[in-house]
Amino acid sequence: MAKKYYTRNTVMQLSKRALEIQASPIRKLMPYAIAAKKRGIKVYHLNIGQPDIETPPEMINEYHNFSAKVLEYGPSQGLDVYRHGLVEYYAKHKIELHESDIIVTTAGSEAITFAMMVTCNEGDEVLVPEPFYTNYNGFATMASIKLVPITTYAEEGFRLPDPAKIESLITPKTRAIMLCNPGNPTGSVYTRTDLEKISTLARKHSLFIISDEVYREFVYDGLSHTSILNIDGVEDLAILVDSISKRYSACGARIGCIVSKNKELMAAALKFAQARLCPPTIDQLAANACVHLPDSYIANILTEYQKRRDIIFEEISRIPGAVCRKPEGAFYAVVKLPIPDAEEFIIWLLNNFSIDNETVMAAPGEGFYATPGLGQNELRLAYVLNEHDLKKSMNIFRLGLEAYIKHIS
Amino acid sequence: MAKKYYTRNTVMQLSKRALEIQASPIRKLMPYAIAAKKRGIKVYHLNIGQPDIETPPEMINEYHNFSAKVLEYGPSQGLDVYRHGLVEYYAKHKIELHESDIIVTTAGSEAITFAMMVTCNEGDEVLVPEPFYTNYNGFATMASIKLVPITTYAEEGFRLPDPAKIESLITPKTRAIMLCNPGNPTGSVYTRTDLEKISTLARKHSLFIISDEVYREFVYDGLSHTSILNIDGVEDLAILVDSISKRYSACGARIGCIVSKNKELMAAALKFAQARLCPPTIDQLAANACVHLPDSYIANILTEYQKRRDIIFEEISRIPGAVCRKPEGAFYAVVKLPIPDAEEFIIWLLNNFSIDNETVMAAPGEGFYATPGLGQNELRLAYVLNEHDLKKSMNIFRLGLEAYIKHIS
Repeated sequence: MAKKYYTRNTVMQLSKRALEIQASPIRKLMPYAIAAKKRGIKVYHLNIGQPDIETPPEMINEYHNFSAKVLEYGPSQGLDVYRHGLVEYYAKHKIELHESDIIVTTAGSEAITFAMMVTCNEGDEVLVPEPFYTNYNGFATMASIKLVPITTYAEEGFRLPDPAKIESLITPKTRAIMLCNPGNPTGSVYTRTDLEKISTLARKHSLFIISDEVYREFVYDGLSHTSILNIDGVEDLAILVDSISKRYSACGARIGCIVSKNKELMAAALKFAQARLCPPTIDQLAANACVHLPDSYIANILTEYQKRRDIIFEEISRIPGAVCRKPEGAFYAVVKLPIPDAEEFIIWLLNNFSIDNETVMAAPGEGFYATPGLGQNELRLAYVLNEHDLKKSMNIFRLGLEAYIKHIS
Repeated sequence: MAKKYYTRNTVMQLSKRALEIQASPIRKLMPYAIAAKKRGIKVYHLNIGQPDIETPPEMINEYHNFSAKVLEYGPSQGLDVYRHGLVEYYAKHKIELHESDIIVTTAGSEAITFAMMVTCNEGDEVLVPEPFYTNYNGFATMASIKLVPITTYAEEGFRLPDPAKIESLITPKTRAIMLCNPGNPTGSVYTRTDLEKISTLARKHSLFIISDEVYREFVYDGLSHTSILNIDGVEDLAILVDSISKRYSACGARIGCIVSKNKELMAAALKFAQARLCPPTIDQLAANACVHLPDSYIANILTEYQKRRDIIFEEISRIPGAVCRKPEGAFYAVVKLPIPDAEEFIIWLLNNFSIDNETVMAAPGEGFYATPGLGQNELRLAYVLNEHDLKKSMNIFRLGLEAYIKHIS
């Protein structure tokens, strides 16, 4: 057959958003880690929130037991059985819901996208305390909206500033305030009083509150977690985005949900959900098994993570000049270091430093900030390794930092 | 604890896109079907492309055999093993790829979203032959882009018009031409010559070609399928979006991919992929089992669907005044009926017509068109039922139409 060729008269231009979208700061240094592994170096990954905890066997069993002959589409809003399970799950957290308040999503990621899409037009603004979960940037780029940072500080344990400070950031384009509680990457847990202040502000300025609570269970030192859905009187403003990834160590299942008692909002979200047909079917059945786990499941994990938090915090405290308040929740810590460029340090660790052929990887802090220049001397550590590995990796980290400071001075 | 309430001073405004996004015309009449079922009526679903074919046991076995202790995140671009499998799959279709040309997505839906996002800015235009897969509308709304219809006609078997006609629709905002080949909902299959004409046009005007080929295998009467990736000289323009849902009757797995040899484009798509972390892990392992099925698997399905196509086409041919050229591919037919409003007819069937307590449901045609008013007297039939049920449901359809025409005259 004669081949036809078409003359190339120009280099194809990609979209502006394709050029602008942020490369994942959590994953972008992976090539250095891969190169290190090729040199025979073991890399401890403190850069990514991939828990090492075993996924509940009850969940895995659901994959093993799938017995339908046809792997069909489910409903766009999620399987009835799972939405019913989620109603029970939230009831345990004193959040009273009806199935129709919930749409199951393909992980928390899709829930965030839907929340942004239903609340914001192109060019609209969403306030978000920084440092924030870096992938919010990607979703904002997709939705063509602007994230306006509410800067918080390592020295203050990343507490929210006064409402007046937040209020000064509100413009006619502001449509929502987005919170991550407990916070990734900060480890901060917002109190009921914090949420009430935010609620007052949101009500005053007619802003939605998008609350990312995927780390709900990960709250230490006997503190309890308050959901935005536990705050009375903001039912029409509150949008919860959630995911099973962390609480059941099931990141690969990609099951999350978006929850709101605002019926118009949920009706609109359902139309976005219909466009993509449905979330994965068997993964929902597996997720549903987790809903019925005994309370001891989470209690055990919590004990384990609190121990890890203590290890990591103790090790950080031994580093001269490091700034980090004790994280109260999630499984991350943002650490400010006495060096000019944390990313350079991480690359140096991967390229040039090891102890007994082992090194460590963290996520550079800058990508977690929207304000240019902030976070350059910070990094995020995820304490998702067992006690032994965590101690070992934090030792490498501390000694590596010492060596790096000598190296650059 | 004292409850605080916040005064509601306004009804919260949703975004413009939340108000404008189309409700799925495939799913929007479901409440009528549910009501019919509650009255004890059996409903044959010709409205939705949910095949009844058994999912390959080799695929289901992968769910049963999952043995890792932790259900982890996979790479954002998809599991290596599966991307390697896809390279082999496409090679069988004479499409030579490298793993890096492929990003695994959460179903074809996400692949379409990524394709739109990397090629178009807000307000940009994409040409698409209408009637088209209705969910393109939802993805376009999410991406804030405009779908500009290239109208095709039932009387002409929905063939593409002359290039000059298509060219007249190109504006400075046009960024891509989107094709569905074989076509949902039309059942049309574009020839190599069709694709070469499109390629010439795309090259001339520097447009991307987004080709949705999820029905690749469903081509009847011994015709063969030409992929956009089989056309030489448009490697930098061509973007393939694909899905395993239909070919392996695995709609609930939500596994698809985006493929392009344009390296800059794939690098940008990867950044969008990183934002949502990864597609579901076990479902990818299951999808990979399908890649290695013997060729007889698809051959058998093809025989079955061609038989169904013949049944449905024969039945349609018996309807006085119905317009429908014989579909060549996919498993849909768009039928123009001698009535003013096909949606009203479908609702009437569900509410008022049954034979032996059985009725039938189709998808109204209007939602598949972007041009206002077009498609009102058309509907889409999906031939996804076995021979017996299909015959029965088409009989109900034909007699229902007769009764409806009497009813409205």
